[in-house]
Amino acid sequence: MPRWETDFGAEGGLFRRLRAAAGADWAGYTWHPFVRALSDGSLSLKGFQTYLIQDYLFLIHFARAKALAVVKGESIQAMRDKAAAVLAILDETKLHLKYCAEWGLSEADVIATPESAETVSYTRWVLDRGLHGDILDLEIALIPCTVGYGEVALRILADPARKVAGNVYQSWINTYGATDYQAMARAAAARIDALGESHGGEARFAKLAADFAEAARLEQRFWQQGLDAGGGIVGNG
Amino acid sequence: MPRWETDFGAEGGLFRRLRAAAGADWAGYTWHPFVRALSDGSLSLKGFQTYLIQDYLFLIHFARAKALAVVKGESIQAMRDKAAAVLAILDETKLHLKYCAEWGLSEADVIATPESAETVSYTRWVLDRGLHGDILDLEIALIPCTVGYGEVALRILADPARKVAGNVYQSWINTYGATDYQAMARAAAARIDALGESHGGEARFAKLAADFAEAARLEQRFWQQGLDAGGGIVGNG
Amino acid sequence: MPRWETDFGAEGGLFRRLRAAAGADWAGYTWHPFVRALSDGSLSLKGFQTYLIQDYLFLIHFARAKALAVVKGESIQAMRDKAAAVLAILDETKLHLKYCAEWGLSEADVIATPESAETVSYTRWVLDRGLHGDILDLEIALIPCTVGYGEVALRILADPARKVAGNVYQSWINTYGATDYQAMARAAAARIDALGESHGGEARFAKLAADFAEAARLEQRFWQQGLDAGGGIVGNG
Amino acid sequence: MPRWETDFGAEGGLFRRLRAAAGADWAGYTWHPFVRALSDGSLSLKGFQTYLIQDYLFLIHFARAKALAVVKGESIQAMRDKAAAVLAILDETKLHLKYCAEWGLSEADVIATPESAETVSYTRWVLDRGLHGDILDLEIALIPCTVGYGEVALRILADPARKVAGNVYQSWINTYGATDYQAMARAAAARIDALGESHGGEARFAKLAADFAEAARLEQRFWQQGLDAGGGIVGNG
Repeated sequence: MPRWETDFGAEGGLFRRLRAAAGADWAGYTWHPFVRALSDGSLSLKGFQTYLIQDYLFLIHFARAKALAVVKGESIQAMRDKAAAVLAILDETKLHLKYCAEWGLSEADVIATPESAETVSYTRWVLDRGLHGDILDLEIALIPCTVGYGEVALRILADPARKVAGNVYQSWINTYGATDYQAMARAAAARIDALGESHGGEARFAKLAADFAEAARLEQRFWQQGLDAGGGIVGNG
Repeated sequence: MPRWETDFGAEGGLFRRLRAAAGADWAGYTWHPFVRALSDGSLSLKGFQTYLIQDYLFLIHFARAKALAVVKGESIQAMRDKAAAVLAILDETKLHLKYCAEWGLSEADVIATPESAETVSYTRWVLDRGLHGDILDLEIALIPCTVGYGEVALRILADPARKVAGNVYQSWINTYGATDYQAMARAAAARIDALGESHGGEARFAKLAADFAEAARLEQRFWQQGLDAGGGIVGNG
Repeated sequence: MPRWETDFGAEGGLFRRLRAAAGADWAGYTWHPFVRALSDGSLSLKGFQTYLIQDYLFLIHFARAKALAVVKGESIQAMRDKAAAVLAILDETKLHLKYCAEWGLSEADVIATPESAETVSYTRWVLDRGLHGDILDLEIALIPCTVGYGEVALRILADPARKVAGNVYQSWINTYGATDYQAMARAAAARIDALGESHGGEARFAKLAADFAEAARLEQRFWQQGLDAGGGIVGNG
Repeated sequence: MPRWETDFGAEGGLFRRLRAAAGADWAGYTWHPFVRALSDGSLSLKGFQTYLIQDYLFLIHFARAKALAVVKGESIQAMRDKAAAVLAILDETKLHLKYCAEWGLSEADVIATPESAETVSYTRWVLDRGLHGDILDLEIALIPCTVGYGEVALRILADPARKVAGNVYQSWINTYGATDYQAMARAAAARIDALGESHGGEARFAKLAADFAEAARLEQRFWQQGLDAGGGIVGNG
């Protein structure tokens, strides 16, 4: 059986310290009932659709926040990496549109969907952390999404209750379990460790940990909207 | 019987056009069940407390957004006015602390209260409108709160169902019904009209109207959290 | 003889109106003595080196400003285009490093060069136009550089006094005279026209024209630093 | 004879470390020939006028940067203090207008004066430090002006070459030598020490020191524009 324990970030580095400090908030995010329902295939299609459409709207503002990280870039290389990340996130929305097309929803339909409170609160909170703080503050607000989705995929892939054959959510799982996504997530955690060194992470730990945990709670609420909309879990048929 | 119809903004000016375009969203905000329950005194104390503590947390970020309007100021006078507004908003929090003190809650208790999703989504959305747009975009995001509370007070003061004697929420009503608050709200609406002229409000109307209506909906959710926390309306005792 | 007159922007569109309003400021930028000295080959190498190293430092902050345009993006397509522009600008710096390598200067040498007052004032002014205003304000601050370099190249290519054989600045001229740069500059001018329509350019014309002209003057000073450092023009050898 | 050595900031605190690290840049700013010419009264009136009008334009953007510090405020008290500072700075411009009125210049004349490269580069650089970084980065960009003017006044008041009787610049000297300005400058330095503790100043020292020194150099250029405009020093008449 595969182990789901992750190796994101270095031993003693800022990322692992933040993840440990977030404790139940982090676990409640990365092993949320929504995630378990993706894993065992019991998530209702309506729940997944609600989540995915909001995730599309989320990514637009997440890309804006990555662009703000370019504005706050501390080197040409960091600027390049973040600008490439903006394009990668905007490309990720094509996956969402492919799903939506299968459901008979056009791009115009998706864009016209009102943002939920969960989407607005999470995305604008991230952007505000960037307006309020420096590159470290902004990256700390961004990292739980980036690395968390990598951990979510690893947890699902190692889940004894996982439904493998005929799981309609398998392509979603594959996206975040893929080698390239995992490598990107590991690089992002390593970057947090490096920024922690260069930008006073030690002295700023309490505030950074509060933000990291807040982002994890905002992720929980984001999953939860899918469950709520979908009438909960429909059974592992 | 007093008329509640307001005269904020000039006939044909941007403010009145936005208010009219927001239609049900605006009415649903300024005559929300929470507001009617303030008026007839039927609001549960727990509901009011929940609202008021979140409103305290809201004002901190609302003051930050007003400060962003100073950064975006188009004249020294506009900068002065907005800086004074920052101080006025921060002073408004003292009213909240006075209530809280009566309930046995210290400033430290209030500040330690987690922000609700409603508070985070509304405040950070306003700040982001400022980061994304210009002074007109930012002021449009701010104005439904400023003028709306003035209208709320006028509606309550004209409400046939209003409980006058022994209404525990009377001091709240008085704050926003007071001459100085009403004058401030009128000046704020006039400023929107002027910014509409100088900053292309006509050509930008569709986007501005969408933002104005979104702010009204965010206000509705903000009231609703009080009702939800308070177990609804407790009866007009 | 080739004509240098440009066709950037549509007849009656915002770009052409701004260019016309800038009058002598625009001409003083696009046909600055520095430009004429590039054309006839009389520019001293020291002057060009000074210019080019500062232009490298300029581009870092110009890319940051383009990233701010992603943050302010009004559509996914606009965000994609601007993120691609960030990467293109950062790639443009490689051209500068190639020149510098020929002069025995490493990337570390170039990055360690202090920014001149001309570089700081121009770049931070552009970024501040973005912080202060909306996407139209920001793009107006950016456009004189983008389109102006296209016009500079056309003017040089049509210059009767142009030195063709053995002009050491020919590769610089080729970069901005190239079909792809010219197409990009035309697209950028067309975008200004479109933003003018959607964002109230007509009502905001006076302020936008003041910013456009200010950028042209900041460009003049930027060229001038090259002349000043190079001991003026060394003669058309 | 009075000693000019200042006691801004605590022994071993961040402010004093930054001031020491800035060495010649700091001394070149706080004892610039322009300052010495204010002290001995040899500054030409034209030089002072040029400086003062640009300082008026400077203060508008300096106030905007203080407002950005409210946006980035880490506590209600910090927000209050900074909002009050915005108003104080905007009030300081009245002193400038009073001088200008004596010279026959109206407020409209002053506002219509184009900003010099020195004014644009310094102010927009400060604002960009705020956009790029956190409250500590922004305050470090702001502090050389605030404390430096306090030190300038102390140096002048202790200057053996100082012209006391009939020095036309005495009211300027009095403004910054006054007890309230000195107290404000001391409080500002103490705040830097505190922010250094809470925001990782130790780990971030190299970058902060580079910014502090850059601000000192931008101040030098700001004085220099007065000397350049005034035809240098006119003699200690």
